[in-house]
Amino acid sequence: MDYKKASLELHAHNKGKVEVVGKMSVENLDDLATVYSPGVAAPSEAIAENKELAYEYTFKGRMVAVISDGSAVLGLGNIGPEAALPVMEGKAMLFKQLANIDAFPLCLGTQDTEEIIATVRNLAPTFGGINLEDISAPRCFEIETRLQDLGIPVFHDDQHGTAIVVLAGLINACKVTGKKMEDLNIVVSGAGAAGVAITNLLLGHEGGGEVVSVRNVVMCDSKGIISQNRDDLNDVKKELLTRTNREHCTGLLADALVGADVFIGVSVGNSVTSEMVQSMAVDPIIFALANPYPEILPDKAYEAGASVVATGRSDFANQVNNVLVFPGIFKGALAVRAPRITLAMKYSAAQALAKLVEKPSRDMILPKPLDKRAVDAVAQAVIDAVNR
Amino acid sequence: MDYKKASLELHAHNKGKVEVVGKMSVENLDDLATVYSPGVAAPSEAIAENKELAYEYTFKGRMVAVISDGSAVLGLGNIGPEAALPVMEGKAMLFKQLANIDAFPLCLGTQDTEEIIATVRNLAPTFGGINLEDISAPRCFEIETRLQDLGIPVFHDDQHGTAIVVLAGLINACKVTGKKMEDLNIVVSGAGAAGVAITNLLLGHEGGGEVVSVRNVVMCDSKGIISQNRDDLNDVKKELLTRTNREHCTGLLADALVGADVFIGVSVGNSVTSEMVQSMAVDPIIFALANPYPEILPDKAYEAGASVVATGRSDFANQVNNVLVFPGIFKGALAVRAPRITLAMKYSAAQALAKLVEKPSRDMILPKPLDKRAVDAVAQAVIDAVNR
Repeated sequence: MDYKKASLELHAHNKGKVEVVGKMSVENLDDLATVYSPGVAAPSEAIAENKELAYEYTFKGRMVAVISDGSAVLGLGNIGPEAALPVMEGKAMLFKQLANIDAFPLCLGTQDTEEIIATVRNLAPTFGGINLEDISAPRCFEIETRLQDLGIPVFHDDQHGTAIVVLAGLINACKVTGKKMEDLNIVVSGAGAAGVAITNLLLGHEGGGEVVSVRNVVMCDSKGIISQNRDDLNDVKKELLTRTNREHCTGLLADALVGADVFIGVSVGNSVTSEMVQSMAVDPIIFALANPYPEILPDKAYEAGASVVATGRSDFANQVNNVLVFPGIFKGALAVRAPRITLAMKYSAAQALAKLVEKPSRDMILPKPLDKRAVDAVAQAVIDAVNR
Repeated sequence: MDYKKASLELHAHNKGKVEVVGKMSVENLDDLATVYSPGVAAPSEAIAENKELAYEYTFKGRMVAVISDGSAVLGLGNIGPEAALPVMEGKAMLFKQLANIDAFPLCLGTQDTEEIIATVRNLAPTFGGINLEDISAPRCFEIETRLQDLGIPVFHDDQHGTAIVVLAGLINACKVTGKKMEDLNIVVSGAGAAGVAITNLLLGHEGGGEVVSVRNVVMCDSKGIISQNRDDLNDVKKELLTRTNREHCTGLLADALVGADVFIGVSVGNSVTSEMVQSMAVDPIIFALANPYPEILPDKAYEAGASVVATGRSDFANQVNNVLVFPGIFKGALAVRAPRITLAMKYSAAQALAKLVEKPSRDMILPKPLDKRAVDAVAQAVIDAVNR
């Protein structure tokens, strides 16, 4: 199927993908006086007395903003806010269909960190949660971190959505291979939004909690292994180095992979060779998530001895797709009015996702992207994490 | 009917009034790949090449932001963004139902002029138009004026929506009384958003064009007549003084009304007495638009000799209600992708509204608020103004 051609036609025909509709209709002047002036003064006055009543009388408690600056859209890069809009409309549509959460896409005309933070702050009163999307690293880290005090969840899906699905897949890949999480030597290739979040989640970093027992991660970026030998590291990479690369490895990705149990690629296509897979430990686990071209194609990886292979693509088994996560994360967080998404929630969500696969196998370490059980399983996991 | 009680129940039951829904549904992985990744890359790439295609492939061309800072909501005053949300949701609902335009309410967490302007600029790529709402004077003037370069219409409805309906009503009130527009002595009481916009529209101010032939307007604020004797005028009032009060009147509202043909009140309830109406010229025309308590009640005004009385209330004849205007203004402007709403469009809209009343009478100088002809009449008037 030619998805691009079909997509162009569908977008042109509908002029986008979401619409804003009333939950009731105004048929006469009595209706008008009830939904609008003068009747509407009643909920407005009540909320003016107690802001929390916005959750009772408005859409706030069921409304998420999907906010992007268009700087890192899909594999297309910095294409700007207007061009990002079809992606964000798609996300809003999925929120509604999968989780019955309303979401509205907002693509911003600035890529300045301070302006984005100020704008999101100004938008917060209207929303129950903020889904940041397709904002490039390293700005995405500072933007998300500094917005954690808003009182509503602010969640950068490219980071944590991906990380949660990867952790779920890794839990099941361990079951398939008989490997233990605490023994794994993991190489993460790519130190952008997803790579940093995956590493943080695997290491259980957030106020020092060590909820996942992964101990050994080596990170690589486009220059090779992130080590103390490097003098070109930004603050985010420097901080990660304090918790990764315990053996002080140096060199390139190929050097890092020698003897490794797990490769997690969120980098560029065709960057892993058969020889590199052959150099890994027995029964290596491969997450080749670059899109549309994986770091190594599944067939080639299996030929080279891989035990389990996941990609970001829908035409192979084991697709890592954020759609398994973001609807449930917000559904759960909104249900309990969580002020932020914690590490415990993310970890709980990953475990719940992993459990949906009853008998993990080489070709089934993750639920299918549209598995109808995923939303409620993840939502319940978020709620459970709050109540624990 | 107890509108306030009904309104509270309706808002609590529905958790607000609008929702964001998909225009299609995702049933399988092919659908997902078409509305979302990888297919969605096609419209995104096309828009990245040519921003104008956002009007073809996204909701931009049919989507209006309803933006408020909650500083001047209904008659309730500065109640803040959360409390303003029920009003803005109502407006969004009316946009969709009356004009099939999608609108999304955004209530901002700032009342700082510069921050509001910066935030609206950052939001502009997502929208085809901006409806500013319930922002207090004089900030509303600067905010709207400085956003006129955005390339999409930015329209403060409290100003111009009200002004257009008042002008339409005045055109028909002249027919009822046999008075001529160019001979009218008009007193406008209230120099906030609506009062300033009414005066500007009556005098045809915008680049000096004199499209309406009203010549004599005296403005009053809470301190009395705006005259050269005053040393407490802000810049907006000073500028208005260069075009109003040609006879250099001084004193209070009662002094201004002596011999006047028209009173237009957008001020406070019960501020006009029978004696003041009796002091006016023969067959005086009264627009007593303060809500919920008019400057003078219709019965009392008629008893004192008024010829035609309009109010802002739905329980009297001749209701001045912006709902007659804003859906059509944006429908017309979006249809021709007008970069701004011009004076010519506003004047054309007022004339079109006036014409909908075939035989103007004391009890019918304006169409009823939900008159189904109003949207298309106003939209066509906007389009005609562009094409003239």
